[in-house]
Amino acid sequence: MKRPAAAGEPQTLSGIPVKPVYTAEDVAGSAPLPGPGEFPYTRGIHETMYRGKLWTMRQFSGFATPEQTNERYRYLLSQGQTGLSVAFDLPTLMGVDADDATALGEVGKCGVAISSLEDMETLFAGIPLEQVTVSMTINSPAPTLFAMYLAVAEKQGADWKKISGTLQNDILKEYIAQKEFLYPPRPSMQLAVDAIEFAAREVPRFNPISISGYHIREAGSTAVQELAFTLRDGIEYVEWTLERELPVDAFAPRLSFFFNAHNDFFEEIAKYRAARRMWAHIMRDRFGAKDERSWKLRFHTQTAGCSLTWQQPYNNVIRTAIQALAGVLGGTQSLHTNSLDEAYALPSEHAVTLALRTQQVIAHESNVTAAADPLGGSYYVEWLTDQVEAQAWDYIRRIDAMGGMIPAIEQGFPQQEIANASYAYQAAVERGEQVIVGVNRFAAEKEEAIELLQIDEGAAERQRAKLGALRARRDQARVDGCLGALRVAAAEGKNTMPLLVEAVKAYATVGEIAGAFREVFGGWTERSVL
Amino acid sequence: MKRPAAAGEPQTLSGIPVKPVYTAEDVAGSAPLPGPGEFPYTRGIHETMYRGKLWTMRQFSGFATPEQTNERYRYLLSQGQTGLSVAFDLPTLMGVDADDATALGEVGKCGVAISSLEDMETLFAGIPLEQVTVSMTINSPAPTLFAMYLAVAEKQGADWKKISGTLQNDILKEYIAQKEFLYPPRPSMQLAVDAIEFAAREVPRFNPISISGYHIREAGSTAVQELAFTLRDGIEYVEWTLERELPVDAFAPRLSFFFNAHNDFFEEIAKYRAARRMWAHIMRDRFGAKDERSWKLRFHTQTAGCSLTWQQPYNNVIRTAIQALAGVLGGTQSLHTNSLDEAYALPSEHAVTLALRTQQVIAHESNVTAAADPLGGSYYVEWLTDQVEAQAWDYIRRIDAMGGMIPAIEQGFPQQEIANASYAYQAAVERGEQVIVGVNRFAAEKEEAIELLQIDEGAAERQRAKLGALRARRDQARVDGCLGALRVAAAEGKNTMPLLVEAVKAYATVGEIAGAFREVFGGWTERSVL
Repeated sequence: MKRPAAAGEPQTLSGIPVKPVYTAEDVAGSAPLPGPGEFPYTRGIHETMYRGKLWTMRQFSGFATPEQTNERYRYLLSQGQTGLSVAFDLPTLMGVDADDATALGEVGKCGVAISSLEDMETLFAGIPLEQVTVSMTINSPAPTLFAMYLAVAEKQGADWKKISGTLQNDILKEYIAQKEFLYPPRPSMQLAVDAIEFAAREVPRFNPISISGYHIREAGSTAVQELAFTLRDGIEYVEWTLERELPVDAFAPRLSFFFNAHNDFFEEIAKYRAARRMWAHIMRDRFGAKDERSWKLRFHTQTAGCSLTWQQPYNNVIRTAIQALAGVLGGTQSLHTNSLDEAYALPSEHAVTLALRTQQVIAHESNVTAAADPLGGSYYVEWLTDQVEAQAWDYIRRIDAMGGMIPAIEQGFPQQEIANASYAYQAAVERGEQVIVGVNRFAAEKEEAIELLQIDEGAAERQRAKLGALRARRDQARVDGCLGALRVAAAEGKNTMPLLVEAVKAYATVGEIAGAFREVFGGWTERSVL
Repeated sequence: MKRPAAAGEPQTLSGIPVKPVYTAEDVAGSAPLPGPGEFPYTRGIHETMYRGKLWTMRQFSGFATPEQTNERYRYLLSQGQTGLSVAFDLPTLMGVDADDATALGEVGKCGVAISSLEDMETLFAGIPLEQVTVSMTINSPAPTLFAMYLAVAEKQGADWKKISGTLQNDILKEYIAQKEFLYPPRPSMQLAVDAIEFAAREVPRFNPISISGYHIREAGSTAVQELAFTLRDGIEYVEWTLERELPVDAFAPRLSFFFNAHNDFFEEIAKYRAARRMWAHIMRDRFGAKDERSWKLRFHTQTAGCSLTWQQPYNNVIRTAIQALAGVLGGTQSLHTNSLDEAYALPSEHAVTLALRTQQVIAHESNVTAAADPLGGSYYVEWLTDQVEAQAWDYIRRIDAMGGMIPAIEQGFPQQEIANASYAYQAAVERGEQVIVGVNRFAAEKEEAIELLQIDEGAAERQRAKLGALRARRDQARVDGCLGALRVAAAEGKNTMPLLVEAVKAYATVGEIAGAFREVFGGWTERSVL
C-alpha cells in the first residue's frame, strides 16, 4: 500500500521533515547525553525513574453534584487509582454560581458543580487530604478553589505543610488557547501569582500551578508550539513571582507542567525530552537557580482528547494506549488516559475503568518501566529531540523580542500561530492526506452505539436548592466584609490568598468572589485572529 | 508505588536482568550497525521499510462453513484488510473429514471446515487468487491444502507463477509445542519439504513454509527460546531441502517466519532485530547462500493470544495495541492483531474490526512508519538485541551438538525447556510477582458481558451432507487410484506434491489422504516431559 503521493514526504505532526533512516551521523553534533537524574535531565528527572516509583495514575473526573463525584472518587481509589483530579463544571470554571441565570443548563454537566465551601466539604468527605494528592483543573477562579481546598484541609485537621496536590492556575494559556478568562491578562497574572507566592510560603508541598501545554495543543497547535508557548509561559510566571521578593529556589521547585500526548508517537517523546532539557537550562542559566529541584521539569500528561472520534469509539482505546505509552516513555510524572467516550460525554464507569486499565497494563505488563529512558541513544529520537528543541527555542526568542508573553498575547501572536497550524491540519484531513481511522478512511456504514453516562437531570436543581439554603443561613455581614476586603487588596495589588481563605470560610461563593474581582479589574474580550 | 521487593530486580520476560539505565558504554563492544536493507539487516530488510510499503494487515479468520467464511473474507477485504489468512477447524488440522465420527462437535468450531476441493472452491469463490495473498495456517495436512489451493487457482485460470501467499507447513514446532502431528517426525519432515521443493520449482512466489515461533511462545516459552528454536527449525528445513538437490538460493528466499508479539515491549523488538541478524549470518556463513534475498528474514507477527484474558476483555484491546506496536517497531512484514474475545471464542464482527483498526491506527495515525527502525541506536534496545542474540546462539549450539532438531525433539529437549519456562512464569503469576491486570490484580467484582459470535449449530450438519453428496457423485475409482499412487510415492520417498494435486482434483478428501500417509508412515505419540 503506497502512501499517496499527494501527502509528500513524511514529516512529523509539527511539520518537521523526516528522512528515511537515521544513523550515528545524525547525532554526531548533538550535546552530550548525561544519564537520568543528571542535568539537563533529557533522560528523566530521576536516576531510576519508574523503578523507584511509578507515575501517578490520575484520572480527571467530576460530574453532577459533589455527592455523586465523591462517590466516584471513592470508587476510583478502590480500583487502584493513585491520585484524584477534579473536573469542574463550566459555571464553576467561569466563576458563576449554580443559581446564576447564566449557569442554566450547564450545572454539573461537564464536571462537578462547586459554588461554595459547603460543596467542597462534600466533595472530599471521607477522603483524608493528607493521604491523597489532588489535582484541580481550574484557572481563572483557581485561587478561590485553592482557598476552599485549604479550608477543607484545615477542617479535617490536616497540616497545610503536609498536603500535596496541584492547582492548574495557568491563566496565560487561557488567553492563548482555552479562552476561559474573566479579567484582563495582567490582573489575572496577579491573582495566579498570589497563589504561587502563598503556596511557597504556607503550603510548601503543593504545586500551585500546572503550566499547561495541553489546551494549547487541543486548540490545534503543533507539538513544537505546545512546547514553546508552555515554557515561555513558565518563564513569565517565574518573572512575575520574582517580583514578589521570593528567591527563585523558594518557589521554582513547585512549578509543575502539563503536556498533551498526541498521536505522533516519537515526536511526543522527543517533546518531553526536549522540555526537560530546555527548562533545566532556563532555570539555571536564565534565572540562576541553584537548587537542582528548580531545574527539574516535572509534568503531568493527558492523552489527546482532540484526537478522539465519536465514530467507532472503541478506536479511541487504541489511540489512548499508544499515546499513553509515549507519555511513559517520555518520562511523565503523572498521567490521565482519556476514556473512549470522551468525545461524546462524561465517561461511563466502564469507560473510565478501561482508561485506568490502560495505564495499569503499561505499568505492570509491558515491562517498559524496567530501564530509565529506554529510547535514549536512538538516532531518530535523539535527532528529533534536537529538532523539536531548536524550533521551540526559536519561538521563545521571538516572544522574548516582543517583550514577553503578555505583549505577545495582546498582539495575538501565539493565537495566530496556533490558528495557522490548526488550519493546516484540518486542510490535510479534508484532503485525506492526514488519515483519521474511522472518519476520513475506514468509515463504518453504521456506527455502533455505546452506553453513555446519563447525567442526573435533578442535580442542578438540588445544587440550586442547597445554595439557596446556604445563602439564607450564612452570616451575610461577614460575607460582605470579606468581599469588601478582597476588593481593596486586589486594587492595591496585595496578595489576595489570605483573604480568599477567610472569604470561603464565611461561605462567600465562587460567583461572589469573581464578581468582586471583576468590579476592580474589569472584563476582557479578545480580538479575533482569523 | 514501590515494586514489591519479592519480585527482585527487574528482568525481561526471558529472565534477562535489566540495569536501571543504559548508556553508550553498554553498546561500545557491539557489532557495527549497518542501515536498513544492509546485511545483516538488524535494522530491517528494506532500505525504506514502511515508507515503501506498509506491512500486510492479515487477520486470521475462518469459522463454520466455507460459505460463511467466504462472506467474512469479502467483508474484511472491503474494510481495508490487505491479505487473507485462513483458520481451519480442528478436524481439518488433524487430517479428519467433517463426516468422521471423531470430528463430532468440532466441525467449523475453531475455524472453517475444509474436507475436499469443493469446500476450497467455495471458500475462495469470487476472490481472485492472483490479486490477493492468502496465508493458510495448517501443518500436518499442509501439502494437501496447498494442493487444493493450487487446484482452485488453476480452475480460476490463475497462473501458478503469479499467485502468492504462505503455507504454515511447519511440522517441527508441532512436536516442540502445538502437538498437532499425525506421523513420526522424519516422514512428516519429508512431506513438509515436498511442499518446499515443489513451490521452489512450480509456484515461485509462494512461501511454502512459515517457520513458526508463535506456537512455541504460546506454549509458554521465553522470547529467547522462541527465537532459538524457530531459527534452529529453519536450519533443519534448509538442510533437508538441500538434500533435494536444489541450490540454497533456489528456495531460501521463500522461507518465511512467524513470530509472537508478547507483552515485554522492548524484548520483543530486540527479538525481531536479533532474528534478522542471526538468520542473515546463518544463511550466508553456514549455508553459503549468495542471493541477498536468502539472507533476509521476512516474518509475520501475531499478537500473543496467551496474554489475553477472559476477565475484563476490553483490556485485551490495550494489550494487543502495545504488542502490535512492538511488531511494527520490530519491522514485521505482516501482522495479525488478536481480537478482544480471542480468549473466549471466535471473534465477533465488532471485535475483528476493532483488531484491524488497531493496525490502521498504528499505520496511519501514530507516524511510527516515518523512519525505518526508529529505535536503532537506543542503548537499551541495542544492548538487549545483543543479549537475546547471544542466548539464542547458545541454544542453537546445544541443539547442533545433539545432531539437530529431530534428535533434540526425540530426546524432549525443547519440550522440557519450554515446560520449565512455562512453569516458572505460572509460579510468578501465582505469587503475584508477575501481574496480570484484571486477573491477579485490579480484578473486578463482576465481569462485564460481551457479545460473542454464535457458531451456527447447523453448519456441521450441512458440511456432512455436502460431503456425503460429494462422495456419492465423484469417480471413486479415480480417487482410489490417486490414493494408491500417493502411498507408493510416500513409501519411496518421492515428492508427493504432484500426486496430491491430482488426488484433490479427483476430490479425494483431507481424511482419505491423511489415512493413506498414515498407512505408510504410522502414527506418533510423544513422551511426557514433566
